[in-house]
This record gives sequence, C-alpha cells and structure tokens, in this order.
Amino acid sequence: MNPNPAKKIINDPLKCADDLFEGLVLAYDGKARKVGTRSIVMNDLRPDAPALLIGGGAGHEPIYHGLVGKGMADGAAIGDIFAAPPPDIVLEATQAVNRGKGVLYLYGNYAGDVMNFDIGAELAAEEGIEVRTVIINDDVASAPIDQKNNRRGVAGLVPIVKLASAAAATVDTLDELARLAQKANDHTRSVGVSTKPGSIPATGLPTFELADDVIGLGMGIHGEKGVALIPMCTAKELAPKMLDIIFGDDLPLNPGDEIVFFVNSLGSTHMMELLILLKEARPLLEARGLKIHQTIVDSIVTCQEMAGVSFSITKLDAELKKLWDMPCESVGYTKL
Amino acid sequence: MNPNPAKKIINDPLKCADDLFEGLVLAYDGKARKVGTRSIVMNDLRPDAPALLIGGGAGHEPIYHGLVGKGMADGAAIGDIFAAPPPDIVLEATQAVNRGKGVLYLYGNYAGDVMNFDIGAELAAEEGIEVRTVIINDDVASAPIDQKNNRRGVAGLVPIVKLASAAAATVDTLDELARLAQKANDHTRSVGVSTKPGSIPATGLPTFELADDVIGLGMGIHGEKGVALIPMCTAKELAPKMLDIIFGDDLPLNPGDEIVFFVNSLGSTHMMELLILLKEARPLLEARGLKIHQTIVDSIVTCQEMAGVSFSITKLDAELKKLWDMPCESVGYTKL
Repeated sequence: MNPNPAKKIINDPLKCADDLFEGLVLAYDGKARKVGTRSIVMNDLRPDAPALLIGGGAGHEPIYHGLVGKGMADGAAIGDIFAAPPPDIVLEATQAVNRGKGVLYLYGNYAGDVMNFDIGAELAAEEGIEVRTVIINDDVASAPIDQKNNRRGVAGLVPIVKLASAAAATVDTLDELARLAQKANDHTRSVGVSTKPGSIPATGLPTFELADDVIGLGMGIHGEKGVALIPMCTAKELAPKMLDIIFGDDLPLNPGDEIVFFVNSLGSTHMMELLILLKEARPLLEARGLKIHQTIVDSIVTCQEMAGVSFSITKLDAELKKLWDMPCESVGYTKL
Repeated sequence: MNPNPAKKIINDPLKCADDLFEGLVLAYDGKARKVGTRSIVMNDLRPDAPALLIGGGAGHEPIYHGLVGKGMADGAAIGDIFAAPPPDIVLEATQAVNRGKGVLYLYGNYAGDVMNFDIGAELAAEEGIEVRTVIINDDVASAPIDQKNNRRGVAGLVPIVKLASAAAATVDTLDELARLAQKANDHTRSVGVSTKPGSIPATGLPTFELADDVIGLGMGIHGEKGVALIPMCTAKELAPKMLDIIFGDDLPLNPGDEIVFFVNSLGSTHMMELLILLKEARPLLEARGLKIHQTIVDSIVTCQEMAGVSFSITKLDAELKKLWDMPCESVGYTKL
C-alpha cells in the first residue's frame, strides 16, 4: 500500500502537529514565541490588560493558532491533528498570556475542546487566574435554532476572533472583553458546503466519503453531517441555497445593516470559485438592503485539502464596526 | 462522461475568467473598479505619478489581478483562463492607470504575455502614453543562468510586485520606477515543486500528468518541465533540494544579508505542509548567515487546485527594505 496516497510533504506522519507548530512559531519572525509543550504567545503584550486565548485542534491551518497576532489573539493552545489541546497545554498558554487581569477563552464548540478548556480553567483557577469562556457556535446548519448551544464553530470564528482581539487591545476588564466577544459571536452566522474530503495526515486516508455527484450542504469541516446532500450544481444555484440558510436563522438582517461577508475555502477549492460565488452572492445580499462593509475572500478555516466553501456574515453595529476597523496582522488574517 | 470531474463550483465553464473578474471587483468593496472588457483599476490613484500595471492569465488567483491594491499595483489587465490578456485589454488598462507620467508594465515571462503587452505598449505609444516594461523571471529551475532571459515568472512576483508598488507610491518618474522594479526582480529567485495537477476549468481535465510516487522538481505552474522528477520524499529531504537550487544560482546570498522568504502553496497543498517545510528550510537559511526580515506563508501564486509548493527569496538592500516595510493591502497580499 502507498504509505502517502495524498502525497503530503511532511516528515513523521504522527508528528505533524508538533512539526507545523515549530514552523508556525518561525513564521512569526520573532513576534511570537513557543511556550511550554505546544502553545504560541505574542511577545510585547499590553500590560495590565485582560488576555484573549484561542485554540483548538491542528490540521485546520491557518486557524486556530495562526490567528495569534498584532491586534489579533494574544496566544493559542494547540492540540494534535483534529484533536483538542489537552488541559495542561491550555494551562501553559493561560499562564503565559495572563497579565493579572484574567483570561478569556474563545474557541469553537466541539466536545473535546469544551471539556479540555473547562479543565484548563479549573487548573488556572487553582493558580489564581480568573477565566471566562465564550464558545463560538456560528454554524447554523449544525443544529436548529432551539438547539443553538449544540452548534459548531466554523469559519465565523475569523471575524469573531478579529473583533474580540480588537476588544482585548482596548478594554480594561475581563467582563467587558467577554461581553464583546459574546456579542461578536451572537452577530455571526455561517454555512458551509463540501464537495471533496481532505486526508488524515497520519494515514493519508480521506476524512469522509462523498459521492461524485453531490454536495454536502451544511457539512462540517471534518465531514460532520449537514442539512442535506444536494446534486452538484452551479455557483449561481448554490449561492442562494447557502444564503437562505443564514437568512432563515434568527439574526435580524435588515435593510441598511452593515455586515462583514467572508467567503472561505475549506482547503483546495480555488479562489477562482470563491470569486465566482461572490459574484453570485453579493447581489443577493444587496437585494436585502445589506451594506457590505468589508468582503473577505480567502482560505483561513480549512481541513487539509478538503474542497468546499463557507459563507459567514457578521452584522456590525457601531460598537463592533469600530473594533472591526482596527488594523490587525497575523499569519491567518491581516488587514490595514 | 461526468461534465465536472473536478467538482468545480462555477457557472459556464467557458466563462470562468469573466465571472471571477466580476467577483474580484466586488471583493474590493468599491476601492477598485472595472475598466473596459476585463481590467481592474484602483480608484483614488496618486495624481501626477508614474503608474504600475500588472497582468496575466486568469485561473491563478489571487495573482495577478488580486495584487492590485493600496500600496500594491494600480491596475491589472486580465486574460482568459491560462491565457495572456489580449492587447486591447492591455491598452484599456494602460489608459486607465496613466496619470500623465507613463506606465510601467510588470508581468511574468510567458511568450503570450510578452507579445500582447508589447503590442499594448505600441498601441499606448500611438495614444501618446509612454510605457516601460520589466519582465519577471525569478524561476531559477526554468532555464540555466546563461539563458536567464528564458526563465519564467513564478511566485517571486509577489515580493517583486509588492516592492515595485511601494516604489510606484513614492517615486516621481517612470525611469525610477522601472529601475526599482528591475532591481526587485534581479534580487529575487524562486524554485517550485509539484506533486499533483490542477484541473482545466473548461474541461475538468488535469493540467498535466505526474506519477503517484514522484515530485516534479522545478516544475512550472502549468506543469512545465522542471529540472528533474525525484522520488516522493519528506519535507526534511525536500527543503534542502529546493534551497540548493536557489543557492546555486547567481544571486549572492552572504552572511548578514537580509531576505524576504516566501513559502507558497500552488493551490491545494495545505498550510500544514508549508509550515513543516518552513521548519526545515529556515535553519538552512540561518546556517548561511541569512537574516529573515519577513516570512510569508500563504497560497498566492496558484494553478487551480494544483498541489505543490515554491520557495522564493528576495534579498533586501537598504533601498528595497525601505520599500518592503511600507504597508499594503490587496486581495492577494496584505501587510501592516
């Protein structure tokens, strides 16, 4: 059997998380440092400020850890491939980002992450560090409105982390940081589709199976079940199907509302396709009277070379817009 | 036969270039506009300044046209998929970016581009617009040193366009802009490898063939012949093979020299792999005494969902470093 059917350019297939982590630290050119086993923390943090810690499994780069940066998160706790960071890694990162004003945990809603960050918070409490938690659950296709707490965190985490990071750069209390991060989450909705699986680095095997003639509508970034399998279709047909799922949710999107619109590739879907989808989606947003304050077209929330796209909408009120307009710089997302 | 074996999310397979172009203009949120048939030009250009026009075939997004931006190129002439922009499109873009001080054409060395931009320059001359040309030829693996003029332009175009754009934002004459763009090109070298083809949007067929157990060392972004087919190998083995090709070229890289190091995915190669390659490459750069002023890890020069990576090195002297450190913002590359 071919030991590397996906032709991945890696070293030891079982050490990808550690290897990519070392590369990530180098990608920061001295602006961030390695902490403990597998955490990355920015140097030159604002003193006497509440801290923002993000994290999650590896293999989805540039998220989560590539969203550490200037005007972005203070640090990240990094798990193994597709696995939550263990509590001791959460703790080491917590200790490193804390500047006496407590730490906000901000991460996607996956069972392993919730468990490990919660234990990390308990360990931190024993060390006298106050922790609050905001869980990202922007994926409208992963559970109905009345089970919102079961929804996963997907690509909306990029605008959410950006907004929370801008808050962390300006506010003085952990309560205020938690309030703004929660608001950013509450103002964000995403829906994704998948056309092809990625591969598991340790085995080279596909992350899931999907027939050649269908699209997984609402499918999660690891191949979690979505709302439906639909026939393969054009961008013009797909864009309204995706947006209607967001429009049908409980976030009020009224004429005159300003939004950030993020078109994300899940890995190998090419930017050509993202741009064609944007061409189809934008008139639908404008037809509802929405004003697009900023468009992002990029591949930031991925699962290896999985093919597929997601749309995320973040509604900006005056408070969030001010946070949005602050510049930021990270491996995963940079804006002037 | 499956009409869309690559499962591309597009509309009419023969109209991808026009469709993505419309999406690209929308991605600029009003900062750039459509000009003529298929050109994009920034609004609010600096008056009485020499202009920088880039361009090339579509299908490689975010290059070339996604490098138009603030502190980036003034405009771009866009071809069909994998095809040079025709002379009338070059002319329409030239007229739109010109502010009375002439226009610098900066594009990759491909026969069709050279021919069409040259004809465009003749047409522009008839309109009284002065044009200079700098051709990007950073791909060391595409021809030996004594045939440097035959070398293709590949991922090095990102730092080259960034530097030339910073020059365009500051200098007053076309001669000075051309000198700095040429210098940026002369200070840049790239080498790429491929592991899997992308697909041709019009047909869904692979862009080239490559056996499952080999890597195309030095292969071009459309599958052009490189220096060798080598057995599939690890990141640790591949990084020195790639860097040695650059080190063996004629750009002096001496202890203490400062560089920009750009690790680029050709499409579907995941950032995990880029980071693992960075982990392996950076110590080799440092072992030569090179100082990495900035690392870029991203997917900017692509060919649909082709898999593979490239390394680009740009050597910064004091003049180029000053240009490098200026902020820029575009769909393809943004820095604070």
